[in-house]
Amino acid sequence: MHNFTYHSPTKVIFGQGTVPKIVPELQKAGISRVLLLTGGKSVFASGLYDTIVTLFREAGISFETVSGVQPNPRLSKVREAVEAAGKSRAQAVVPVGGGSVFDSSKAIAAAVGSGHDVWDIITRKHAITGALPIFGILTLSGTSSEINDTAVINNTDTNDKMPVAHPLLYPAVSIVDPSLQYTVPLQQVRYGGFDTIVHVLESYLAGNDTAGVITEHSEAYVRAVMRCLNALPEKLNDYATRSELTFCATYAFSGWCGLGRASRGDFATHRIGHALSALYDMPHAVTLSVIIPNWMEYVLGKGLNRDVFARFAVTVLGVPETAADPAAAGIDALRAFIHSLDMPSRLRDVDITAKDIPALAENAARTLPFGSVIPMDLATITAVLERSL
Amino acid sequence: MHNFTYHSPTKVIFGQGTVPKIVPELQKAGISRVLLLTGGKSVFASGLYDTIVTLFREAGISFETVSGVQPNPRLSKVREAVEAAGKSRAQAVVPVGGGSVFDSSKAIAAAVGSGHDVWDIITRKHAITGALPIFGILTLSGTSSEINDTAVINNTDTNDKMPVAHPLLYPAVSIVDPSLQYTVPLQQVRYGGFDTIVHVLESYLAGNDTAGVITEHSEAYVRAVMRCLNALPEKLNDYATRSELTFCATYAFSGWCGLGRASRGDFATHRIGHALSALYDMPHAVTLSVIIPNWMEYVLGKGLNRDVFARFAVTVLGVPETAADPAAAGIDALRAFIHSLDMPSRLRDVDITAKDIPALAENAARTLPFGSVIPMDLATITAVLERSL
Repeated sequence: MHNFTYHSPTKVIFGQGTVPKIVPELQKAGISRVLLLTGGKSVFASGLYDTIVTLFREAGISFETVSGVQPNPRLSKVREAVEAAGKSRAQAVVPVGGGSVFDSSKAIAAAVGSGHDVWDIITRKHAITGALPIFGILTLSGTSSEINDTAVINNTDTNDKMPVAHPLLYPAVSIVDPSLQYTVPLQQVRYGGFDTIVHVLESYLAGNDTAGVITEHSEAYVRAVMRCLNALPEKLNDYATRSELTFCATYAFSGWCGLGRASRGDFATHRIGHALSALYDMPHAVTLSVIIPNWMEYVLGKGLNRDVFARFAVTVLGVPETAADPAAAGIDALRAFIHSLDMPSRLRDVDITAKDIPALAENAARTLPFGSVIPMDLATITAVLERSL
Repeated sequence: MHNFTYHSPTKVIFGQGTVPKIVPELQKAGISRVLLLTGGKSVFASGLYDTIVTLFREAGISFETVSGVQPNPRLSKVREAVEAAGKSRAQAVVPVGGGSVFDSSKAIAAAVGSGHDVWDIITRKHAITGALPIFGILTLSGTSSEINDTAVINNTDTNDKMPVAHPLLYPAVSIVDPSLQYTVPLQQVRYGGFDTIVHVLESYLAGNDTAGVITEHSEAYVRAVMRCLNALPEKLNDYATRSELTFCATYAFSGWCGLGRASRGDFATHRIGHALSALYDMPHAVTLSVIIPNWMEYVLGKGLNRDVFARFAVTVLGVPETAADPAAAGIDALRAFIHSLDMPSRLRDVDITAKDIPALAENAARTLPFGSVIPMDLATITAVLERSL
């Protein structure tokens, strides 16, 4: 195994009916005043907000609510919440939502704990020297923000989208109740599952490692998510299926799948996908499904990573070991799986053509360097996009 | 998945040559005075102690050394170390050793941090209200004390062996360098690997769960350890083999293999094994190898857990799915694997006979309740021991 550092300090309380457990966790930490942070309407419509407010009132935990956090969370909302946290002397931030609400809570926690303007902290003008603890309730899986130390905040004034990460920003406690996600529509559940699969593949396929326990754990994650997605739509509200999907979404992207491997992650698929998100209104998972099989063909065409691609085909996708070219057959099988989810596997399926490629490649190249199998540049990004047509 | 709480906050720095990384970790935490805790001679003979002392002197970290911690760590040594930590105003404990040194460091950390006598804390006369942070260096895998919050301390005055556990006692940082364990003899390495396998099986076989990602992760751990043990003795000093074994020893017993399962663990094999340790001078792993295949036969004879036993046989032990009775064939295969490690699989192999059983059963029964597949009592413990003859 290659050397690594692994740190995943968040306490995860997982399962149906676990929301009330946030109260004893706050109490054990001596916290009686919190900032409650939410997204848009769904947390109010579902009754979850009322549940939490009742729990807090009964326990004597005072709270100030800031709602309306949007996807791609905005700096202006974060600033509003920082002010509210200061005025109410909040001792902790309680995000109730998905990745954008958790991400925002981290920026708020750092700004309040460090006593500096939040954008000065995100742009590293001031260091993070303290942070309020975060006790969150997850309502939508996807980014693993519930167990990582990272946030991405969008400054709409300057058009900058900036990441911030610090060990003080791991949530102290994350409540993950899969049944809170029953209201998510079928296609969104599929998108979430496919995103989880690509999170695993970004490290699993990043080097040509074909042995060891982390290789097998990665394969187990992908097989599990595929089993669950294949069981839909029949099992859409089946707890066993949804809890397995939710578990994998949280933990498959904890860093575990990169431990001891030659590369912690390739991320060319994600970075090129981000360019598609930036220029077209496409769901994140679709930006991945139209790139990854074609990125794989591109890599295989260069004669790279054939062993791990073949292993993936056989152990995960059911390609017979005796196939003439298991690595190539695996890419076809992945494409067939993508189509079974009513998702596209080529740019032409989403009406993107050759003339659109230069702008996409240029946009993706702005986030260079990336790519560990093939370190990317403008020419290789263009080549992957051309193969994806 | 069944509901669970998972918390594993220790930062693990894993790999060859990682010992010097303890210095920046202490510095980042603002620590300049530590209690250095070691076992017997090996840490001095190997030069590791001198390496650490040189690192600390160069970094201006002052230290007080307490050495001589023994297996089954003694209260008297812990008290000596608590006094030394107090006198030198240590801000952290640095255990350098195996499970007994890590366990002792937790008792010391709790006593100093809570300001009470260590035995009063272990016997819960006083609560743990604080603890010095622990920054450890592992030199012998086995107990996973490097990533858990538990210690077992032996009071030789009262003949009591007591566990203590508290979330404040997770090590902050554990340095795990597999190459520090190259000096461990072949048979000890086998014992360590077999102990890891049984740690997984205690939860994997505890219910009849045969699906899901945790099932597959557990199987991957056992297959990985078996592959490594089968590669010995040729690969005894092969880093790939030893790092995989060390990784599995640390993480397979982190609680992960029990997540979401019907039972977090059975532990009848461990508890009955402890009685063998108490009454005979046997290595821990041998107490497990002479019980577990026979416990499996006993469980299978009751018609329980046939599905998971059959799955274990096929996915881990290479028994063909078409075998007449895969579950039974799996037990035979496990026994053959045990023998391939030069280990016994029955009590008669270690000269324990029917007349010894009553005393063994009574000793094991002192730690009731245990057993989730079959909740144990004196009669069932006796029956498992009789089947183990």
